[in-house]
Amino acid sequence: MVANGRSFQVGFDIPAKIGDRIDDIHTPALLIDLDAFERNVSRMADSAKAMGVRLRAHAKTHKSADIALYQIKHGGACGVCCQKVSEAEALVNAGVKDVLVSNQVTDLKKIERLAQLTTRARTIVCVDDADNVDHLSASAQRFGTVLECLVEIDVGAGRCGVEPGRAAVALAKKIAGAEGLKFSGLQAYQGAAQHIADYGQRKANIAAAVEMVQATVTLLQQQGLQCEIVGGAGTGSYYFEGASGVYNELQCGSYIFMDADYKRVKDKNGEFIHEFENSLFILTSIMSHTKSDKAICDAGLKAQSVDSGLPTVFGNADLTYVKCSDEHGVIADPKGILKINDKLKLVPGHCDPTCNIYDWFVGVRNEKVECLWPITARGLAL
Amino acid sequence: MVANGRSFQVGFDIPAKIGDRIDDIHTPALLIDLDAFERNVSRMADSAKAMGVRLRAHAKTHKSADIALYQIKHGGACGVCCQKVSEAEALVNAGVKDVLVSNQVTDLKKIERLAQLTTRARTIVCVDDADNVDHLSASAQRFGTVLECLVEIDVGAGRCGVEPGRAAVALAKKIAGAEGLKFSGLQAYQGAAQHIADYGQRKANIAAAVEMVQATVTLLQQQGLQCEIVGGAGTGSYYFEGASGVYNELQCGSYIFMDADYKRVKDKNGEFIHEFENSLFILTSIMSHTKSDKAICDAGLKAQSVDSGLPTVFGNADLTYVKCSDEHGVIADPKGILKINDKLKLVPGHCDPTCNIYDWFVGVRNEKVECLWPITARGLAL
Repeated sequence: MVANGRSFQVGFDIPAKIGDRIDDIHTPALLIDLDAFERNVSRMADSAKAMGVRLRAHAKTHKSADIALYQIKHGGACGVCCQKVSEAEALVNAGVKDVLVSNQVTDLKKIERLAQLTTRARTIVCVDDADNVDHLSASAQRFGTVLECLVEIDVGAGRCGVEPGRAAVALAKKIAGAEGLKFSGLQAYQGAAQHIADYGQRKANIAAAVEMVQATVTLLQQQGLQCEIVGGAGTGSYYFEGASGVYNELQCGSYIFMDADYKRVKDKNGEFIHEFENSLFILTSIMSHTKSDKAICDAGLKAQSVDSGLPTVFGNADLTYVKCSDEHGVIADPKGILKINDKLKLVPGHCDPTCNIYDWFVGVRNEKVECLWPITARGLAL
Repeated sequence: MVANGRSFQVGFDIPAKIGDRIDDIHTPALLIDLDAFERNVSRMADSAKAMGVRLRAHAKTHKSADIALYQIKHGGACGVCCQKVSEAEALVNAGVKDVLVSNQVTDLKKIERLAQLTTRARTIVCVDDADNVDHLSASAQRFGTVLECLVEIDVGAGRCGVEPGRAAVALAKKIAGAEGLKFSGLQAYQGAAQHIADYGQRKANIAAAVEMVQATVTLLQQQGLQCEIVGGAGTGSYYFEGASGVYNELQCGSYIFMDADYKRVKDKNGEFIHEFENSLFILTSIMSHTKSDKAICDAGLKAQSVDSGLPTVFGNADLTYVKCSDEHGVIADPKGILKINDKLKLVPGHCDPTCNIYDWFVGVRNEKVECLWPITARGLAL
């Protein structure tokens, strides 16, 4: 099989071939339950439409051109977000026409590439530094194009972004006056709120963010600066931003897959989020079982990111993934039901950095492999 | 540049080119300080030689054919260990002639590949299951070769391996009597002891392991079974196994790089391990600095594994890496010394799964890029 200009050998660098049964897939492998994935994509498209806001799906979750194009074609996405210039390039190369790098790009070499990208697709970038405006402007002028900029404001995440209000207006004015740049609005992502389990606390955090955004939008309008884009929101909070009347672009990513940590977030009835289903799984095999009450599987730290906790075993409440080392996972099996070579589906603790480890998604429907999607921008951390 | 049959573009999928200064390297990137690396390699070679034991360096740490061959040529290694059949294949393809898969291989398709590998290199595998012996034997016979097997015993790690003593002898006898297999000895790695900070506790754990190994070796001898290989040990304990008079092969891996977690392990004087130096670094750039007391760098969860803790900032006690999200790290900078585009060297919390994320090692000497080593078996989790 050939993809991305390379040839791949099944079982060595490709985990399966089209038509394989799940039991034939070489493990560990990253599976997508295509039915669940498609339902998730549709649900978010419907939600955004119902709220009258655009969806700019976040491609940092999957880094896959196939999925980005699917979200645009079938999932109501107006374009995508990504976090790195290299990701933006990979997606534009595959046919995506509208990309927001929802991040700062300050390295001069990367700025050149970003400016070059504007000649091939609508390209938007976030800014939180005045010197950066000069650098972006110089590059855009060299390529004779216009680079769209959002002023990133810190609405509570405490990471990137200038203060809402006057600091944001000052930066917006500088952008609006810079040759080769266009001020296109605000980036206002409250990342720290997404994984708060309690609904009320999430709601309060986003309400505070909305207030800061509204105040900034008003100040900008008073200076004659319109926000074509007011962007933010993630899978844990999108219904708040979407209904705020202030945000007009949602940047959700994880909704397509979900993960163990997002499944601990609760809705307004105190129940775990259920509008999106787990569609992403690590397929793992049992490869040692010398103790009666535990089995060892082949998915360890090199098969997932455990930053947000260990994975859960899907569909079997008797089994618990209790420990992780480089190439092994320990599965508590108190009833002794597992045998060597049995396969399990694990729900990753955190989907984004787990996807970044794999080269392929194995798309499965009706227990058979339907597609193999390269993780186009895997490892393109640059 | 072309490697592994692919062509690579600097800054996109390759972080640097030969001769670049450190400041020219695209970040985040994984650097090797070649001087420190070479000193580490020499020190372990000298230690093993002084103790009169073989070193079978563990390639799971680096997954790099260049480093494996360097360890064999210049680092006193008799061969390498790896954890996956796909890793073994990648290393044999590159010229390694002696490989121990220090793990169980139970999948029938992988067993076929393992048996095939014996026709190209000395190939050894670990076994902890009687049925597995039948499967290995059948495959070896199909290829008309001999596959060497170590009986893995659990000497306290509580993961894979049969009980020391009679269970191990029974399995060894089965191997010795199986067509196409050769009983070559014991695998007795006490993985749970490696990262225990306290010297006395590590010593006690390994002493207990040595006792179990000795008893098993004696029982095997009484049955006429000799252990050509008694293997185990890691960077945190190798001097105990090496001096035990029972182990004859050390399987250390992390010593070439070290990491933040290994640097918390203490020696007999209560001091942090200092016989090996940090030689592996994540090079990161500051890309946002809107708060006076903290800066944001471009190395987050997709640039490292944080399972064993956050990275440390190398060579600057005023800076602390305090928080990690997908593409960002937060650096506490109480004195406000950092500027946008400044570069930092981070010591990864855990080297093995961090290396597994990257495609390239950037070898640096005298502040210049001297070599680019592909991480040959990256992601080959199969």
